[in-house]
Amino acid sequence: MSERIAVIEGDGIGQEVIPAAIDVLESLDLDFEFVEGEAGDAVKEATGEALPQSTYDLAADADATLFGAAGETAADVILPLRDAVDSFVNIRPAKAYPGVDAVRPETDLVFLRENTEGVYSGHEDDLSDDLSTLTRVVTTSASEKLAHFACDYVEDSDDHDDFSVVHKANVMRKTDGRFRDAVVGVAEEQGVDTDEVLMDAFATHVCLDPEQFDVIVCPNLAGDVLSDLAAGLVGGLGLLPSANIGDDNALFEPVHGTAPDIAGQGIANPTATILSAALMLDHLGYTEEADRVETAVESVLAEGPRTGDLGGDADTDEVTAAIVDRL
Amino acid sequence: MSERIAVIEGDGIGQEVIPAAIDVLESLDLDFEFVEGEAGDAVKEATGEALPQSTYDLAADADATLFGAAGETAADVILPLRDAVDSFVNIRPAKAYPGVDAVRPETDLVFLRENTEGVYSGHEDDLSDDLSTLTRVVTTSASEKLAHFACDYVEDSDDHDDFSVVHKANVMRKTDGRFRDAVVGVAEEQGVDTDEVLMDAFATHVCLDPEQFDVIVCPNLAGDVLSDLAAGLVGGLGLLPSANIGDDNALFEPVHGTAPDIAGQGIANPTATILSAALMLDHLGYTEEADRVETAVESVLAEGPRTGDLGGDADTDEVTAAIVDRL
Ligand SMILES: CC(C)[C@H](C(=O)O)[C@@H](O)C(=O)O
Ligand SMILES: CC(C)[C@H](C(=O)O)[C@@H](O)C(=O)O
Repeated sequence: MSERIAVIEGDGIGQEVIPAAIDVLESLDLDFEFVEGEAGDAVKEATGEALPQSTYDLAADADATLFGAAGETAADVILPLRDAVDSFVNIRPAKAYPGVDAVRPETDLVFLRENTEGVYSGHEDDLSDDLSTLTRVVTTSASEKLAHFACDYVEDSDDHDDFSVVHKANVMRKTDGRFRDAVVGVAEEQGVDTDEVLMDAFATHVCLDPEQFDVIVCPNLAGDVLSDLAAGLVGGLGLLPSANIGDDNALFEPVHGTAPDIAGQGIANPTATILSAALMLDHLGYTEEADRVETAVESVLAEGPRTGDLGGDADTDEVTAAIVDRL
Repeated sequence: MSERIAVIEGDGIGQEVIPAAIDVLESLDLDFEFVEGEAGDAVKEATGEALPQSTYDLAADADATLFGAAGETAADVILPLRDAVDSFVNIRPAKAYPGVDAVRPETDLVFLRENTEGVYSGHEDDLSDDLSTLTRVVTTSASEKLAHFACDYVEDSDDHDDFSVVHKANVMRKTDGRFRDAVVGVAEEQGVDTDEVLMDAFATHVCLDPEQFDVIVCPNLAGDVLSDLAAGLVGGLGLLPSANIGDDNALFEPVHGTAPDIAGQGIANPTATILSAALMLDHLGYTEEADRVETAVESVLAEGPRTGDLGGDADTDEVTAAIVDRL
């Protein structure tokens, strides 16, 4: 069965790392059809819209989408795209690979971030010249949906047994209280062990001792900030892939942005995007291929060639070729 | 002129580290009158109230308050106490001291955290069986007040010239947009340089290279989480003091909690509380004494004795005596 993959490069190094990931995917000789869509700053400049309806539809109708990065318009692109694929969870693995100079080389975490609500609800008002409000939304249904996913995730995996619920329910008593109760309730039903950590305490303890954590289930903004913190611990955003999973669709993207300082030079690190492609393969059922890609990436990270952000001097093409070579 | 200092030990190691800080303050022979108030889990158990009105009034009427920690009731104690002293900014220095095993020994940051609003507004509702909301509040007035404080803070200091505004205005456009515009606007008026960093990007970059940051001005929850992250980078919460500053009053507290695992053994690290006392001295105009305390603490951190959390085997009294000795 042919899979229809929407490909959205976006701006900056998105235009360099997505072609690299496509090279890797094409070398696997699977029955993939790649269809391109446009989004980002340049499209906004040209058309007035950062995410044209046609690109939204492309992602909504595809079997999966691979997205690069967008510049100033990032939020206008990625938030609607997550919605286009009806994504309820953002999976963000943060693993320190051998050969990469990491602040905390023992880090090996997976964030399961609620992907639809919290402060991302989009309800804001200017109530006076002095005052604005934002309505933070938490539902039991979205929290339970995330929790079921998290339970299945750890049950289906050889590497994980339980998860930590990270929240700030001591301050956000009703909203994060609801989140916590829903997630812990589902986990109890499914017989999955959990522990609870306050969001601020997590930030301290993950620096001091990342090995005490494994899978982290958390609200939207907590997942955003804490997974970026983990990115710092493993040596930078250049390595972190992510998956936005919906019931019938999904979108895969590197956690990094457009890197305007190096864009256009062909020297961007394609690792995060190639690992995102591996998450896509896994999601589409090509588990063996996904493993092969991850293993090839790991071996190149360990032995080189490496891009500048990792202390090497290889360009994007050389790193990509080395990965393809090892597949 | 005699200063009236409210002293609230609270629970757990609060009852060990506050007496240590009082020892240090008493050894300075200043004209301080210490008046004790109760708060925390034990008081709640006994009276039904975590923060009795009498303790609230004590803090409100004192020249300054020194607070230890509270257990399960932490939020019920500290949030009203911050209100009792009309605190609009929470100052949180996070500095790696020589002799302390830090994840990032170059870390030397000061967080200026908005202390009254954001998700701490306290407006939450259960709107249905499925749905809760929280109203996140941002005002120009509170943001400008913080900004004026921040500008004065860097202008009055030899160590700081500018500050970073950390926010998530790409998602919270009206609320954090208002915060950013207000803070940057005041800084421009006062001629203080600023740069802007998104909250998630800050979390990555402070791990990778803490030296690129100095003073950080941010909303309430961002300050909570990011300063705790910085605590992780400098080697733990045992070292971090904080000051809640109001126009006519202030409250000083270690960033750490009650540490139930070691409470009652007399082995808690008193450093964070003694440094909080130093911030109090500085605030009350005893700058020379504040410097002496900080210097004594630094020298004990460098040379020992050290408590267990820092790899030593000294108890609270020995560390306190060593600090008093060096004053
Ligand atoms: C660009 C921004 C809206 C986005 C987010 O906050 O989710 C980004 O930080 C991310 O984590 O993918
Ligand atoms: C106890 C809690 C309410 C408090 C906060 O979130 O402000 C604490 O984490 C702190 O930072 O002092």
